[in-house]
Amino acid sequence: MDFYFDNAATTPISKRALEEYASTCANYQANPSSIHREGLKAHEYLEENRDRIAKVLKVEKENIVFTSGATEAIAIVMENLLWQKTPGRIITTRIEHEAVLSFIPLLKEKGWDIVQLKTKGGFADPSDLKEALNEETRLVAIMSVNNVTGAVQDIRTLVETVREYEKNLKRKIFFFSDSVQALGKTGLDLKGWDVDGASFSAHKITGPRGIGMLYLKNRQLIRPLAPAGGQESGLRGGTENLAAISAFRAALEETYENRLEKEERVRGLNNLIRNAFSDSGSFHINSPENASPYILSIATPLPAEVFTRMLIDKGFCVSSGSACSNNARKKAGGVLEAMGVPGKLSMNSIRISFSDSTEKEETLLLIKAMKEIANG
Amino acid sequence: MDFYFDNAATTPISKRALEEYASTCANYQANPSSIHREGLKAHEYLEENRDRIAKVLKVEKENIVFTSGATEAIAIVMENLLWQKTPGRIITTRIEHEAVLSFIPLLKEKGWDIVQLKTKGGFADPSDLKEALNEETRLVAIMSVNNVTGAVQDIRTLVETVREYEKNLKRKIFFFSDSVQALGKTGLDLKGWDVDGASFSAHKITGPRGIGMLYLKNRQLIRPLAPAGGQESGLRGGTENLAAISAFRAALEETYENRLEKEERVRGLNNLIRNAFSDSGSFHINSPENASPYILSIATPLPAEVFTRMLIDKGFCVSSGSACSNNARKKAGGVLEAMGVPGKLSMNSIRISFSDSTEKEETLLLIKAMKEIANG
Repeated sequence: MDFYFDNAATTPISKRALEEYASTCANYQANPSSIHREGLKAHEYLEENRDRIAKVLKVEKENIVFTSGATEAIAIVMENLLWQKTPGRIITTRIEHEAVLSFIPLLKEKGWDIVQLKTKGGFADPSDLKEALNEETRLVAIMSVNNVTGAVQDIRTLVETVREYEKNLKRKIFFFSDSVQALGKTGLDLKGWDVDGASFSAHKITGPRGIGMLYLKNRQLIRPLAPAGGQESGLRGGTENLAAISAFRAALEETYENRLEKEERVRGLNNLIRNAFSDSGSFHINSPENASPYILSIATPLPAEVFTRMLIDKGFCVSSGSACSNNARKKAGGVLEAMGVPGKLSMNSIRISFSDSTEKEETLLLIKAMKEIANG
Repeated sequence: MDFYFDNAATTPISKRALEEYASTCANYQANPSSIHREGLKAHEYLEENRDRIAKVLKVEKENIVFTSGATEAIAIVMENLLWQKTPGRIITTRIEHEAVLSFIPLLKEKGWDIVQLKTKGGFADPSDLKEALNEETRLVAIMSVNNVTGAVQDIRTLVETVREYEKNLKRKIFFFSDSVQALGKTGLDLKGWDVDGASFSAHKITGPRGIGMLYLKNRQLIRPLAPAGGQESGLRGGTENLAAISAFRAALEETYENRLEKEERVRGLNNLIRNAFSDSGSFHINSPENASPYILSIATPLPAEVFTRMLIDKGFCVSSGSACSNNARKKAGGVLEAMGVPGKLSMNSIRISFSDSTEKEETLLLIKAMKEIANG
C-alpha cells in the first residue's frame, strides 16, 4: 500500500476489529430478533455491544441506534421532518457533509425554509445562530468537526443558544450534530454538549464499513419514515448486523485506549507539516490553529488535482477534498470558500488526514515530496 | 449450535464469503471514491464484483445498486414516491414484508391511495390486479417469494398485466418485486419477469449482513430523497462497503453452483416433512404445493409460541413467523389469514426454513421431535 494520508475518507480495519468480526460470525449466527436460543444469544451479545459502546461514549445504551453508517443516521433525522404537517425552518451551515446538505432540495420542495449560517474562519457564530432562530425552527444541524478542514465547532455554546431560545418557545428544537470526525478523538462529549442527536461511522476509526450509529438523547423525538422489521426500537429496520456492530465496538474501545497520548503524537505529525510550510510563500494552511490534529487542509502552489496527482505518482494517498463525491474538489472548495479562503487558494487545496497508525517517517517523506513538487 | 431451521431469517455466513470479506479488507483498504491509486484499485474491484453479480443474475452491471440490505433497497423505491407532486395509487398485497407494508401509514398521510390485493391460497390474481389498475397508479409492489409460506407469485403474468395497461396509459407504472427469498434459487428471472425493480439481501444466502442490492431496470425512474455522497450513481450514498460486497458476490456465486441439484435435495427434505404430516389430523401444511422448497409453513396442534418453545427446548431453531418483528406471530398470522388459512390454524403455525446445508439427519430428528410434541 502507498503512504496513506486519506484517513478522513476511510481507515483500514484494525486486526482486532476484523478478528472480532470473524469470531462473531462464527459464534453468533442467528438473527438477533429470532426468539429461539441461538437468536436470544445473538440478541444478548448485541445488547452487550451496545452497552460497551455507550460506556465508551459516556451515554446510556438506550441512546444508541445502530445504522448502516453515518449517512443513514443523518437520513433518519432529516427524513423525520417529512412527518411534520407543516414545514418550518432548518438552520444549518454551508460546511456540512453532503449527507446533510443533499437533503436541502427535497426539503425546499416540501416548503421548508433553510438558513445556512456563515462560517467565517471555519466557525458558526452563536450570535448568528441566535439571530436565525425563529418560532418555526424545528432543526439545527451543525457538525462538530469538519471533514475538510478539521475545524472544531463550539457545539456546547451553540446548543446553549438553542436551549435559551427554547425557554420562551416552550417547545423542543432538535439539535443535531454530525460527529463522524469527532469520534475516537478527545473532544467528543455528547452529554456535555447536550445535543439531541449525532451521527457516527465505524470505518473512520478502523472499524468495518457498513456500520454506524445515531445517538439520540430522546428516541421519542424521531419517527422514521417506516419501521420496516421494527429493529432498533423501530428506528432502523433490517436484520441487525451483529458482526459489524461488535467489530465497531472493538475498534472504538481500541481507539480510546491511551487516547490522549495517541492524539498528541498525531498533533506532532500535523505540526511537522504546518511548521514545514507555514513560512512558505507558496503554501497556505487553511485549517484553523485549534483544528482536529487528524485533518489538515493546505493550499498548494498548483491546482489541487495537479498537486494531488503528482503526490499520487510519488506513492502518497491524499485527497483533493472529501472522498464522498465524484466532484470532491468542488465540494471541498465550497467548504473552504464558506470559511473565507479565497477562490484561488481553495482551488489549490489538498486534504492530508492522519490516523493513530500514521508514522513520523512517512510524514517526513510527504513533506519532502511536497517541497519537491513545489520546487518543480 | 442447535439444529437450525430458521434460514429464512438469516443464514450463517459461508467460509468462502468470510474469507473473501477478510481478504478484501486486507487488499483493498481505500475508499473506492478516492482518486488516488489505492482508491482506484478499490473502485475497480467494486466494479468487478458488480459485474460478476450481474452475470449470475443475467442482467447488466448498470442494473445493480448496492445497498445496506433489502430493507434499504425497498425504502429507496418507496421513498422515491415522496418526490411526486401529486399522490396517486399504489397496488400491493397484504402478504408483503414489513419493509414494504410499514410505508403505508406515511404514504396514506401524504394522500396516497393504497390498494392491497387479495391473495387467496397465497397468490395475487392477475385479474384482480387488472381491475385495481387505474390512471393514478404509480407503483405495483408484489413480492416474488413469500417469506412466511414460500408461495411463489406468477410475477411474469402480473407484470404483463401492468405492461398491457400501460399501453393505453402511455406512461410507465413501476413494477417492484421484493425478491429476497427468490435469490439464490432457480426461479429468479429478472429479465424474463420484466420487473422495474427488485430487492435482495446477502445474509439470506450465506453472505454477510449489512449488504444487499436494488435491481433497477432503468435507474432514471428512481430518485432518492438525498444522494448524500453521490455513491452508486447518486442512488445510495455512503462509503461503498467493498468487503461486504465482494463477500456477497462470493456467496452468490457459491450458491448458484450446482443450483438445481441443491434445490432438488432441499425439496426432498421439505417433502419428508410434508409427507410425515400431510395425513395427520393434527397438523396442516399451509404452504402451497409448488412453494419454494426452502420455506414450509405448517399448522401444529398447539399455539405457535408453545410449539416453537417446545421445539426450542429440544434444540431446534424454528420460527413462529418471520424474525423481523417483536411480534412475529401476529405478522405471520396476517400473511396466513390473507391466504385464507383460518384464524385458529394461523395462530398455531410455525415456519421451518432450509438452506443448502440443512442435513437429512437433522430433518428426520425435527420430524421426530414434532411428533413427540404432538403426542404429548
